[in-house]
Amino acid sequence: MNNFVYYAPTKVHFGKGKHREVGEIIKGYGYTKIMLQYGQGSIKKSGLYDEIMDSLKASGIEVVEMGGVEPNPKITFVREAVKRAKEEKVQLILAVGGGSVIDSCKYTAAGAASDCDVWDFPTRKSVAVNALPIGCVLTLAAAGSEMSSSAVITNLEFNMKRGFNSDTNRCLFAICNPELTYTVDKYQTACGIVDIMAHTMERYFTVCEPTDLTDRIAESLLKAVIDAGKVLMEDSCNYEARATMMWASSLSHNDLTGCGRENVLAVHQLEHALSGEFDKIAHGAGLAVLFPAWARYVYRYNIPRFAQFARRVWEVTESDDEKAAVMGIETMAQYFAFLEMPVRLKDFNIPRDCMDKLAQLCTFGRQRSVKSYVDMDYDVIKAIFESCY
Amino acid sequence: MNNFVYYAPTKVHFGKGKHREVGEIIKGYGYTKIMLQYGQGSIKKSGLYDEIMDSLKASGIEVVEMGGVEPNPKITFVREAVKRAKEEKVQLILAVGGGSVIDSCKYTAAGAASDCDVWDFPTRKSVAVNALPIGCVLTLAAAGSEMSSSAVITNLEFNMKRGFNSDTNRCLFAICNPELTYTVDKYQTACGIVDIMAHTMERYFTVCEPTDLTDRIAESLLKAVIDAGKVLMEDSCNYEARATMMWASSLSHNDLTGCGRENVLAVHQLEHALSGEFDKIAHGAGLAVLFPAWARYVYRYNIPRFAQFARRVWEVTESDDEKAAVMGIETMAQYFAFLEMPVRLKDFNIPRDCMDKLAQLCTFGRQRSVKSYVDMDYDVIKAIFESCY
Repeated sequence: MNNFVYYAPTKVHFGKGKHREVGEIIKGYGYTKIMLQYGQGSIKKSGLYDEIMDSLKASGIEVVEMGGVEPNPKITFVREAVKRAKEEKVQLILAVGGGSVIDSCKYTAAGAASDCDVWDFPTRKSVAVNALPIGCVLTLAAAGSEMSSSAVITNLEFNMKRGFNSDTNRCLFAICNPELTYTVDKYQTACGIVDIMAHTMERYFTVCEPTDLTDRIAESLLKAVIDAGKVLMEDSCNYEARATMMWASSLSHNDLTGCGRENVLAVHQLEHALSGEFDKIAHGAGLAVLFPAWARYVYRYNIPRFAQFARRVWEVTESDDEKAAVMGIETMAQYFAFLEMPVRLKDFNIPRDCMDKLAQLCTFGRQRSVKSYVDMDYDVIKAIFESCY
Repeated sequence: MNNFVYYAPTKVHFGKGKHREVGEIIKGYGYTKIMLQYGQGSIKKSGLYDEIMDSLKASGIEVVEMGGVEPNPKITFVREAVKRAKEEKVQLILAVGGGSVIDSCKYTAAGAASDCDVWDFPTRKSVAVNALPIGCVLTLAAAGSEMSSSAVITNLEFNMKRGFNSDTNRCLFAICNPELTYTVDKYQTACGIVDIMAHTMERYFTVCEPTDLTDRIAESLLKAVIDAGKVLMEDSCNYEARATMMWASSLSHNDLTGCGRENVLAVHQLEHALSGEFDKIAHGAGLAVLFPAWARYVYRYNIPRFAQFARRVWEVTESDDEKAAVMGIETMAQYFAFLEMPVRLKDFNIPRDCMDKLAQLCTFGRQRSVKSYVDMDYDVIKAIFESCY
């Protein structure tokens, strides 16, 4: 077990009806003026917006509104939000939405407490030392941003999707009501399942010794999510399955599933190149294609690990390690197909000749490689993209 | 899944050599004067005391010392510590030790920020609203106090052991170096294993619907601890096994293993009566006797639950639920015996005629019952104590 620091201070209010407590919760911290961010307006159609505003109003919270956060949130929006947050002197940034809205709020919170440009955080020109407190009302179980230290942003000027990790990105509180995800469609639900699984598997497949307790927790989480996914493909309003997904999304990315292990997220680096270049690709869908492709390439460098994964998570009974490893990967790929996720890159209708560009993006123009069981340089990454076109 | 609040804000610094960072960590928070509490002097023999003091000194931290915390810490000691903490205006209470020292620090921290007597917290005469920040350097993997909200204290005036739960009891930071537990003897190591398992099993066996993700996490933790225990009975200096125990001790009692479930800790209520009345009984040893006795009594009220426990944790393959349930309980009891824990109450050399007194203590003189799969009133509890004498 590697040395580690574990810090997940977010107070999670989980369960039915909890979003109606948002005003009371914020008031409990003593804040009276906040910025509210949300997405493309679905919360207005669903009535959630009204419920949130009623709760805030009842607690006497003044609200500065910034709706319109896009999926793969944009740096331009954040810059505008930072400007308003400073002008209006808001005390807390509240996200009502999924990972994109929360990530937008994380950048806003860090930017509002700093004099630098927010693009300086992911490009390492500045370090976020302070941030306004962030709260969220979660409406999508997927990204795990509600408890994570990471925040990803897209800069269309360079077609780049980049993230940074900082404890200043940790939400002060997260309100998680699984009922709010009943209306998430099949495709987005499936994307969420893949994202949650990927956050867990990325940590599971890093270069370090087995860490029995962390391994078993990761395997548990995967099994529970896989089963919940099966239920949700049939019954989108199953509370227990929605609750499992929502709580798993938080736990899969709050570092619990990686304690004592490396924290590299290799496949995410490939996927960020993909959905950075092609803005319409959903992160989870990209991962559904890339994770099996990556696994088929690297498993031979750690066969016992992939065999354990196959046996404990996918209940593969094959006694030969290499055969079991392959069966585990293919069972995973079949599960993603069962979720009706795309299987190959061409399913996204992207051009055949973009592989060079994607591999360049992953390696900063061949300047670096991505760490995994084998060092993935430009050639390896291009080969992985090619293999799943 | 029941609604729940999850809040585990303690920053955990885990791994080899980490205790030498204590001064730096405290300085990082801006504190310059602290109270240091520790136990009966073993940290002086081991050299840990010197290492801690060197680290604190190097960071310019002024230290008010309160050594001598007893196992099952006493209210009289805490009252003295509160007095000194107030007089000396310390800013943080640092525990170097196991659950007893940490619990003593929790009461001290709450008492130092209040005008009431510290016995008022467990007796519900006062509510802890504030507390000084608490840090710890953990030397024993058992109680999980380093991340829990609970704190237990003994009042010899009434021969009572009582606890209270509050977020003010959460440590600000916990330094967890598994190497510091290499010298813990076989008996105390075994007590720790039972305590960690009990914290997890108590939450697993509460009156509510199955909660798949939480169930699986709990089962994972139990399996990892059971395996680590087997290693440690042979090799007390196995780092991985010590690390598994230490991290499991924190996770088993920081509420993770109970999310979405009731939080009653029924067997703990019986054990607190036992070790409250007989001060020399180690908490884990008491639990090793009482847990199987309790389970043999209540399993018939939730056979499917005990069957799941038997199959997933103890790998029982019996297909009949009731038979599997019983086999699981007996395998658990055998495992505790393998750990060389006492099997019956008479192994503690306590008198045969104390059952009435113990049952009275659990039920506040027959005034209330303890909640479990069946309501445990005075008669039931007395019968459970009798059954394992």
